[in-house]
Amino acid sequence: MNQIITIGREFGSGGREFGRRLAEELGYEYYDKEIVSEIAKKTELSESYVQQILEHQPHRLFPITVGQSLAYVNKYHNDLVVKVFNAQCEILKSLAEKSDCVIVGRCADYILRDYKPLRIFIYSSMESKVERCLERNSANMSEDEIRKSIRSIDNERAKYYEFYTGQKWGHKRNYDLCINTSNVEIKLLVPVIAKLFK
Amino acid sequence: MNQIITIGREFGSGGREFGRRLAEELGYEYYDKEIVSEIAKKTELSESYVQQILEHQPHRLFPITVGQSLAYVNKYHNDLVVKVFNAQCEILKSLAEKSDCVIVGRCADYILRDYKPLRIFIYSSMESKVERCLERNSANMSEDEIRKSIRSIDNERAKYYEFYTGQKWGHKRNYDLCINTSNVEIKLLVPVIAKLFK
Repeated sequence: MNQIITIGREFGSGGREFGRRLAEELGYEYYDKEIVSEIAKKTELSESYVQQILEHQPHRLFPITVGQSLAYVNKYHNDLVVKVFNAQCEILKSLAEKSDCVIVGRCADYILRDYKPLRIFIYSSMESKVERCLERNSANMSEDEIRKSIRSIDNERAKYYEFYTGQKWGHKRNYDLCINTSNVEIKLLVPVIAKLFK
Repeated sequence: MNQIITIGREFGSGGREFGRRLAEELGYEYYDKEIVSEIAKKTELSESYVQQILEHQPHRLFPITVGQSLAYVNKYHNDLVVKVFNAQCEILKSLAEKSDCVIVGRCADYILRDYKPLRIFIYSSMESKVERCLERNSANMSEDEIRKSIRSIDNERAKYYEFYTGQKWGHKRNYDLCINTSNVEIKLLVPVIAKLFK
């Protein structure tokens, strides 16, 4: 069976960088945004629409269609959400069959549970997350805006994860290894953690 | 500065074995029950009484002394609890000054925070903890009794930790690394984790 590493992560914790560098270090495939493109291809929806569905709580996303009853809109919307989630499951499973890999987000820890992935969760203190976001602050947001944005994105991630898995996002029981990246440079941390797999 | 590794652990998770083996593997000093003996020496209390103070919630331990008022008993008790905790702090700090070491329990992650310890928390699923306890079940307890006992001991640990640190016991934010030992053999896990320090 291939070695699958799934990465759950808080926004600003450096989890995506961690996943990418870990895959590089180990010579594993790395999947993150590629999954969205694959879902778009499979469902014949636009990438941006798939992204929207993936980023929001399933029950909050209503593609408003004038002149149709709410019941119809709801049904249309639910069908789409289910279609996207099913496509995501199929794609993740085919990636897991293909080779050793690192997968960031996408409830992969849960969807691929039969593949016995090593489930990592990356988290940091709020100060550390704000600091990381300030470094790459292309939108010139204030510290306060960044703080709010972190809370809001993590809140969406938690609801999405909980909706599909019935498990609590970020709770240590759902992971094999939880790593605190507060005050840690990801590029220095990765070679150390990579030793676990060598 | 010496490398200090502190281990918090759920009862039955194999945390103590993990700490002992990790210290062995790394050639570090290992401290666990030795700390109780040291506290007893420093406070001139018996080891078993120190153990009692350490294992119970501070406010629940009353050495009943016939003929004395409750206020006096309370004061006597509180003084003792503080004395024991202060002795514990001093001992932990002197151990941290001495050499690289692994310390299990005793709020060491919090007490030694100025020494920047690597704070590990070891946990498992309830099934896995029950299984571990059944293996070394010298008291011939039923599975149900073991389950209750695990809950009760962890409850005491949590209250003790929270009383002295003001932090939530077992919450990932208070640790650098949380390791799930469900279905894992500790003796196989330790050499892998030890690589992080080599």
